[in-house]
Formats: sequence, structure tokens, C-alpha cells
Amino acid sequence: MSDVLIVGSLALDSVTTPFGDREESWGGAALYSAAAASLLSPVHLVGVIGEDFPAAALEVLAARGVSLDGVQSVPGGKSFRWAGEYTYAMDAATTLDTQLNVFADFNPHVPTSARGAEFVFLANITPVLQLQVLDQMTSPRLVLCDTMNYWIENAREDLLRVLARVDGAAMNDAEVRQLTGTPNLCRAAAEILSLGPRFLLLKKGEYGASLITRQGHFALPSYPLPNVLDPTGAGDSFAGGFIGFLAWVGSTEEATLRQALAIGTVTASACVEAFSWDALLQLTDQDLYSRYEELREMVRLEPCPLANSG
Amino acid sequence: MSDVLIVGSLALDSVTTPFGDREESWGGAALYSAAAASLLSPVHLVGVIGEDFPAAALEVLAARGVSLDGVQSVPGGKSFRWAGEYTYAMDAATTLDTQLNVFADFNPHVPTSARGAEFVFLANITPVLQLQVLDQMTSPRLVLCDTMNYWIENAREDLLRVLARVDGAAMNDAEVRQLTGTPNLCRAAAEILSLGPRFLLLKKGEYGASLITRQGHFALPSYPLPNVLDPTGAGDSFAGGFIGFLAWVGSTEEATLRQALAIGTVTASACVEAFSWDALLQLTDQDLYSRYEELREMVRLEPCPLANSG
Repeated sequence: MSDVLIVGSLALDSVTTPFGDREESWGGAALYSAAAASLLSPVHLVGVIGEDFPAAALEVLAARGVSLDGVQSVPGGKSFRWAGEYTYAMDAATTLDTQLNVFADFNPHVPTSARGAEFVFLANITPVLQLQVLDQMTSPRLVLCDTMNYWIENAREDLLRVLARVDGAAMNDAEVRQLTGTPNLCRAAAEILSLGPRFLLLKKGEYGASLITRQGHFALPSYPLPNVLDPTGAGDSFAGGFIGFLAWVGSTEEATLRQALAIGTVTASACVEAFSWDALLQLTDQDLYSRYEELREMVRLEPCPLANSG
Repeated sequence: MSDVLIVGSLALDSVTTPFGDREESWGGAALYSAAAASLLSPVHLVGVIGEDFPAAALEVLAARGVSLDGVQSVPGGKSFRWAGEYTYAMDAATTLDTQLNVFADFNPHVPTSARGAEFVFLANITPVLQLQVLDQMTSPRLVLCDTMNYWIENAREDLLRVLARVDGAAMNDAEVRQLTGTPNLCRAAAEILSLGPRFLLLKKGEYGASLITRQGHFALPSYPLPNVLDPTGAGDSFAGGFIGFLAWVGSTEEATLRQALAIGTVTASACVEAFSWDALLQLTDQDLYSRYEELREMVRLEPCPLANSG
């Protein structure tokens, strides 16, 4: 089992959905992905919080074996805040408010004990900070990065520098199209790979996710859920489950990447079943196993019975 | 090998895409689905055309073994026309014009020789006509129906009568949500099954397709294509390939339905690679085999390596 390093936001989220709302609940990309990855592997967290960040949230992470040595607490500072709203389709959030607060002056510092982590997830923060973290790592075996439309538009050159240095990128289809300017997803994905990463994790929300490499495509549907309460953190739980599994296996082969995508899919399915990380925290190894095998059954296909004349 | 009966539109389509346009090319749901199904099984076509419908299109179908005894030609009549436009996303067409013409007074008549067909595809026409065709069939083993938003809104009661009598329904996610009034796709699909069909073919365009039964879900991604020229007819090619394969195998078991979904996916992939049915007509058994096996490789997943403690 290897260590995972995660850098990203720790936030207070205010979320409105047709099924209810939550004020200032515990959130942020790093919180979700660390909670997800820590189910399988030791996690080092790098981030920044204000004085107002609830100690209880950090205690939950610590109890899951997450090292918080890299989490800076700014005296007198206010934590990052995000407010968003979902419609019935539960696909994309409309951002109502973003307050950077302590995030505005964040300089990530990776503790010495965490610099040797072999698996790294650069969650969605400004690409310059993602590069600063990479510069502090000794020799990671696999680095995965996330990003968003804002950085594609406003920090394109830095983002391209990140992509040139990572092994994998996690993006949704709109981001892939926006970054490349190519409407056809198949071609756009190939263009992303030409920028550096050897694999693209294409996040398609309720339609599942794909793993695209130079060798080919792998795709899984999402785990079918009759009740989706809050999609916040789904992509981060997906990435956290993905990288946590890779570290647990200690492999970066394509067959393992495929399995990791399934684990990420299952992890994300738990995340969206309740507000904040409430359901994610309840997820067990046995749940991962059961839902993984259900997903595998969902794509079981017998060979083609037509004659192969080629 | 069993026979397939298909009823639906034969049309002259005017299509505009970012990659070019075509005026009054051969189209219609029945044309696409009959061309697709005839690759594997004998097809009986029921439809209506005006005097202006090109004989050459019918000759192509006849050369593929499609029986045209059920195609009524209205003296002095004008054929059904549709005009639509696609943007770069190539997902949904915007309808620019619809002219029912001879379709307005269509009374489908199933020739005696076709009434025993065991596999039936009721393509997208008014539900009353779908019911009229069903009334003329002897004892089909499997009936699949298509529909559209217009009938869901304007012929809901008739459509529910159709659904109560078919084995499967082919619908996209917007139609499933519209018919049930349920935003969650997993629950909406279950509600469709409660209306009668034992399976739902959920068409998700570039995201692939799912087969949903009371026993579970099966899902495949779309076949990755770097060049999509014209999506017109994709759903009908999908359904035609699906039903043609079932008739070829002569089975309606779930494992066969899964294989049929893969064949339908591959058939649709050929359809969208060129305007009208140009690429679809070039599709061979060997192409079906090769792309099917590529799809199967795309969803290959090793067992979960976590311990099963349950």
C-alpha cells in the first residue's frame, strides 16, 4: 500500500436542491477526495482553512488516518465558501456565490513526511498552486489533476504546464471541449492526451465515466440510484476513490486503472445519496465490493455470435 | 432466422449540419431501420409514399431482401418531408419543417404474407397507427416501439395503450422523463416498465444506450467516432440493428437482448459517419463483428480485488 497526497479546497458549502438545502456544510474538493481515498490508503492532505473551519470535520478526517500536517490554519482568517443550486435534473450546479477568503493568499507547503507520496491528486485549484505542489514532491509514480472552466479560460498557459507534467487528467466533457476547441469528444480526448497525460478520466455525470488512453477507450455507466440528494463532491469522490484504489494496489497498469475507475464510480455513487459527505463516510469496503460487482454485471456482454471472416 | 416487420415513415429529409447539408435525401424511420435490420434478417416494410418518392431508394431496399408489399404509393400524393438542423454538438436536431403529406391519411395495411412476422418494430408514428398494425399481426414473439415528445404530449392515452401491448420501448432520456414526469432516470425507467414493456432501450446518443429490465441494468457506451457527419437516423438504425439481430438469433432472452443492443450500437455508429444512409449501406457482417468486439473490449473489467466479507 502506498501513500496518497491530495491538495485542494476545504470549504463551507451552501447547497440548494429540490430536495432540501444545507447552510455551510463541510465540503471542498480536498475534503471529499481525502475522505474517499482514505477508505483504502493513507492520505496526506494539503490545504488551507480559516479560524471558522469546524474542528469536528478535521477530526473525522484524522480518524480515517488522514494526515493533516499540510493543512494551514490562518489566524483570524475566514474559510473558503461556495454556494450553489441544483435543479431536478441534478446534473450541473449553478454557482450562486464564491468567497475565496484564505484561499486567495494560499501557498501550499508539502510537509517533509508527505513529499515521498507515490500517488498525487491535484484537486481543482489554480494551476499555479498545482505546479507549486508538484515541485515539492520527490518522485511521484502517478499524478492526477482536476481543473474547471474558470482556469481553462483564465489560466490557460499554467494549466497547459500542469497537463504536461501529470499522468492523468480528470475532466468533464464540457471542459474537454472548451480546452481543445474541438466539439467531437473522441478527437478532443486525443488532443488532451497530446498535451501530456497518458490517460484522461472523462466524467459524464449520470452517464458514467470513461478512461481514454492512447491504446483505447474504457467506459462504465454510473451506478443506478433511485435517490440522488446532492451531487456536490461527486467528481472529487470519484477522483479520490480512483487514486486511493491505485495506491492500495500499488500499480498503474491499464487493467488497474479500469478497476480504479469502477471504484471511483462506486465511491461517487455513495457521495450523492445524501447531503455533504454524510453517505460517503458510511461507505465500507464491502459496499465497494458489492457495487463494483454490480457494475461489472451491468456491462457483461457475451461474444459476438456473427462469424469473423476478417 | 425469423422475419421482421417494420412500420414507419419513408421520407425526404433536408438536413443541415456544420459539415454540410443535403436536400431531400432518402430518409425516414422505416427506411433507416429496414436498411439496418435487413443486414441480418428478412424484413417486411409497411409505409406510405407519394409519387415523388425515388424508385431508386426502394430498389436499394428490395436488393437487400426487404419486402415492399406493404408500402402504399398514393397516386398524385407528395411524400412525407422533414427538415432539420444540427449544431457542432451533434446531439439533438432542431426541426425546421415537417410536412405530413401522404402520411396524414395513412392507414397501414399489413400484407397477409407479413402478418406472421415474429419480430416487430413500430417506428415513430402516431400511436393509433402503431395499434392498427399490432391488430393485424398474428402472434409476434417480440414487439419494440419507438415514440417521440409530440405523441407523449398530444396522444398520451393512445401511447399508453401501445406501451401496454409491446415487449420493449426505445426512448431517449428526455422522453422517459417527459412521459413519467419523474426527473430521476432510474425511477422513471422503472415507471415505464410498470406501464407494460418488459424492457426499456434507453437511447443516450453519444453516451451510448442502456437496456433496463425488471432484473437490472445493462449499459454500453457509443462506439467512439472521430468523425460524425449526420446523426439523422441513428436511433432508427439502432432499433433496426437491434430487432434484426434478435430475429437472426431467434431468441428473446436477456443475454441476447444485450448482444442485440451491442449490434444496434454498432449499426448506429455506421449510420452517423455519412449523410443519409450512405455509410449504413456499406456496413458488412464483418464490420458488425469487429466493432462489436471492440465495444466488448471497451467494457472489459477484471473482478474486484477487495475482499468480499458479505
